[in-house]
Amino acid sequence: MKILENMTVTDVSGFQAVGIHCGIKKNGKKDLCVLYSKVPAVAAAAFTTNIVKAAPVQVNMEHLKSDTTQAIVINSGNANACTGSQGLQDAQEMASTAAAALGLSPQQVMVSSTGIIGVPMPMHVVVPGIQAACELLDNGNGQSAAEAIMTTDSFPKQITVEILLDNQPVRISGFAKGSGMIHPNMATMLSFVVTNANISKDLLSAALKESVGDSYNMISVDGDTSTNDMVIALANGTANNPLIDTANDQYALFKKALDYVNIELAKMIAKDGEGATKLIEVSLHNACTQKDAKLCAKSVISSNLVKSAFFGADANWGRIMCALGYSGGTFSPQAVDVFFKNEKGILQLVQDGAGLPFDEDLAKKILDESYVNIVIDLKDGSYSATAWGCDLSYDYVKINGAYRS
Amino acid sequence: MKILENMTVTDVSGFQAVGIHCGIKKNGKKDLCVLYSKVPAVAAAAFTTNIVKAAPVQVNMEHLKSDTTQAIVINSGNANACTGSQGLQDAQEMASTAAAALGLSPQQVMVSSTGIIGVPMPMHVVVPGIQAACELLDNGNGQSAAEAIMTTDSFPKQITVEILLDNQPVRISGFAKGSGMIHPNMATMLSFVVTNANISKDLLSAALKESVGDSYNMISVDGDTSTNDMVIALANGTANNPLIDTANDQYALFKKALDYVNIELAKMIAKDGEGATKLIEVSLHNACTQKDAKLCAKSVISSNLVKSAFFGADANWGRIMCALGYSGGTFSPQAVDVFFKNEKGILQLVQDGAGLPFDEDLAKKILDESYVNIVIDLKDGSYSATAWGCDLSYDYVKINGAYRS
Repeated sequence: MKILENMTVTDVSGFQAVGIHCGIKKNGKKDLCVLYSKVPAVAAAAFTTNIVKAAPVQVNMEHLKSDTTQAIVINSGNANACTGSQGLQDAQEMASTAAAALGLSPQQVMVSSTGIIGVPMPMHVVVPGIQAACELLDNGNGQSAAEAIMTTDSFPKQITVEILLDNQPVRISGFAKGSGMIHPNMATMLSFVVTNANISKDLLSAALKESVGDSYNMISVDGDTSTNDMVIALANGTANNPLIDTANDQYALFKKALDYVNIELAKMIAKDGEGATKLIEVSLHNACTQKDAKLCAKSVISSNLVKSAFFGADANWGRIMCALGYSGGTFSPQAVDVFFKNEKGILQLVQDGAGLPFDEDLAKKILDESYVNIVIDLKDGSYSATAWGCDLSYDYVKINGAYRS
Repeated sequence: MKILENMTVTDVSGFQAVGIHCGIKKNGKKDLCVLYSKVPAVAAAAFTTNIVKAAPVQVNMEHLKSDTTQAIVINSGNANACTGSQGLQDAQEMASTAAAALGLSPQQVMVSSTGIIGVPMPMHVVVPGIQAACELLDNGNGQSAAEAIMTTDSFPKQITVEILLDNQPVRISGFAKGSGMIHPNMATMLSFVVTNANISKDLLSAALKESVGDSYNMISVDGDTSTNDMVIALANGTANNPLIDTANDQYALFKKALDYVNIELAKMIAKDGEGATKLIEVSLHNACTQKDAKLCAKSVISSNLVKSAFFGADANWGRIMCALGYSGGTFSPQAVDVFFKNEKGILQLVQDGAGLPFDEDLAKKILDESYVNIVIDLKDGSYSATAWGCDLSYDYVKINGAYRS
C-alpha cells in the first residue's frame, strides 16, 4: 500500500468535488460542498445511534436503499437537527436540487450537515449555493471540499492511499470533520470515503461496518454522540479491477487499505479535538474478550480526569486504573500493568495493579510531547484494542462556552 | 420535619466525632476524622461499583456483616487505592487501631479514605493520629469532622433534620465530601449519615439503598466513578422510639427525612464540583418508565457540552436534545419540550422536539444565575426523575491538570 501525499478525493478516477461559501456561515468561510461520481457508484454508510437524528441522517437512511449513489451534498454551519418537519423537507430539497443540477434521481443523492442544532436551514442561500457548486465541480477541487465541511476544526482532514487489486491500481481517499460532540457510536462525525475500486454494494457495506468499529468508534473527544454523525463510502468501479463480490484475498487487501484510511482520519479527528494539545493513544492488550478490550480502552480515552491530567502533563495513573474499573469491562485489577510511551522513552507506572516508584523527570518529558501512548496490559487473555483521544484543556471550555455566538 | 440550622452529627444523641491534622496532608489542614457512637449502632452502606475498589471499600464490605458498628475512621489526602496487599493491611490496621482505642472489635469499625490513588498510606502518622483522635472525641466537634474529610472541596457539607417518630424527636444528620471524580453508581462520594432513630439493620439498609438511588446516584460532576465512593449510615436507637422493623408509616416518615438529608448532601456535592460556578438541576417529566426518566436526566447532567454551555451562559439547547438522544432512554424526539427556569423567570426553548424563537435577553438573565433548572417534558408517560450537576469551567481543567503536585 502506498500513501499518496497531497492528494484528495478528486485524485480518485471518476470523482469530482468542490467546496464554496454560499452564506450559511457569517464569517465568509466555505460552508457547502458537493462530491460527485461521474458514473453510478455503490454506497455504504453508518449513521449515529443517537435517537435524536438530524434530518439529513433520516433522509440518507432512505436514500441508501437506492442501488446506486452519485452525489453527496454537505454543508457546515447548520446541523439541520431538531428542526421538525421543515428540516426534513429542507434536507429532501437539498438532495433534489443537486439531483436536478446533475441529472440524477433524488434517491441517488445523499445529504449531510454539521453545525448548530435547532436553527432552520437558510434555504434561500443553500439552494442557489448547491446549483452554483454543481456548476463548479471539477477534478482539482478536493481540497476545497475538505475545507467546506469544517466547523471548529483547525485543519482539513484528508488521506489518500493506493493499492493493487488484481494488478490494477486502486485508490481510496477520504476527508472528514471532527472537533467537538465527538464520541461516535456505530458511526462517526462526518467522514466521506471514495474509491474507484470495483466492489459490490454488499461487500462495501460489510467492509465499512467492520472498519467503523475499529476506527471512528474508537475515538472520543468529549463523550457526546452527535445527532449528525455519519460516514459514507462510495465505490465507482472505474479502476476496472475484477468485481469484488466475495470475501476473497482481494477483498482482504481492500479492507486493509480502507481500515488504514478510516483509522488515519479518526486519529486526525481525535488530534484536532476542541482545544486539544495532545493526541493520546490507548493500546490495550491481553483482555479476555474483544468487547472487554474495547470497553476498557474507550473508557480510559473518555475520562475527563485522565484527559485533564494529560493536559497538565501530570502522571496521575490512578485515574487510568479508575477509568478501567468503571468501564464495564471484565478484568483482574490485581494483574494490570500500565506504561507511558513515545519517542522520549517508555516508563512503567503500574505493575500487578499497584503503583511503582517511577522517574518523575522522564514522565514529564514523555507527557510534554504532543503524542503519548498509554499502554495497558491486562494479562488476562489475548484480545487487543486501540483507542484515540485528546487532552481536555481550558480552550475546550472556552470554545464550548460560547459556541452559538 | 424541622431543618436544624448550624447543627452537626454530634448534635445527634449518642454520637461523638472529631477531625484533626495528623500529617497526611502537607499543607497542615485537617486530614483525619473519627465518628463514634457511644452505644452499639446498626449500619447500612453502599459502595462504589468500580471494580477497582480501594482497600477501605474492601475492608468495609466485610465489616458491614457485623451486627453492630460503632465507629468510622476517615482520612483525606490519600485514597489507599491501587496499593496492593499492603494497602489492605493498612486499612485493616486503621480499623484495629481505632477498635483498640475505643474498646471495640475491629469488625465494629468502618474505614474510609479519599485523596490521591496509588500512594502507600503513611501509617507512621496515621496510627498515632487515630489514637490521638480517639482521645479527643466529644459532643461538640462535628464541624471539625466535616472539615477533615475535605480534599478539593471548597466548603464542608452538612445537614441536620429532626422528625417525630411515635412522638419521640429523632434526628438525622450527615456530612459528605465531593468535588471531583464524581459520577456515583450505586454509591457516592464519601457521605456519612447518623441518626438516633431506633430502626433495624435490615430496614436501615433498605431505606439507604433506595435513598442513594434518588440522591447521590443522580449527580455527576465529571462522569468518573471513583474507586473509593461510599455512603455509610449509622442508627444508634438512643431516641428511644419504638423499634422500626416493618415498613410502616413511621418507616415512611423516617425514609422521607433520610431522603431529604441525602438529597441535600448530594446537591451540595454537585454545587461544589471542581471549578463549578453553577448548580444545575434537571427535572425530567413524563417518561415511559422510571429507568428512562433517570437515564435521560443523568445523560443531560453529564454532558460536557451542556456543562460548557452553562458555564458560558449560552442557551445552546440543541446539546440537551443531543444528550437525551444518546442517553439510552426511550422516548419520542418529536414530543420533547424543554424549559429553563429559576427566580429570573421561565423560558420555553423547545416544543415538540423543535426549537422555538426565544427571548435571548431573558435566557441570558436566567443562565447568569448560580442556580438553573432545566425542565424537560417527554410527554410520553408518567415517570419523573431529578438529577443535579454543575457547569464545566476552566478551573476544572486547572484543578485536575496538576492534582498530584
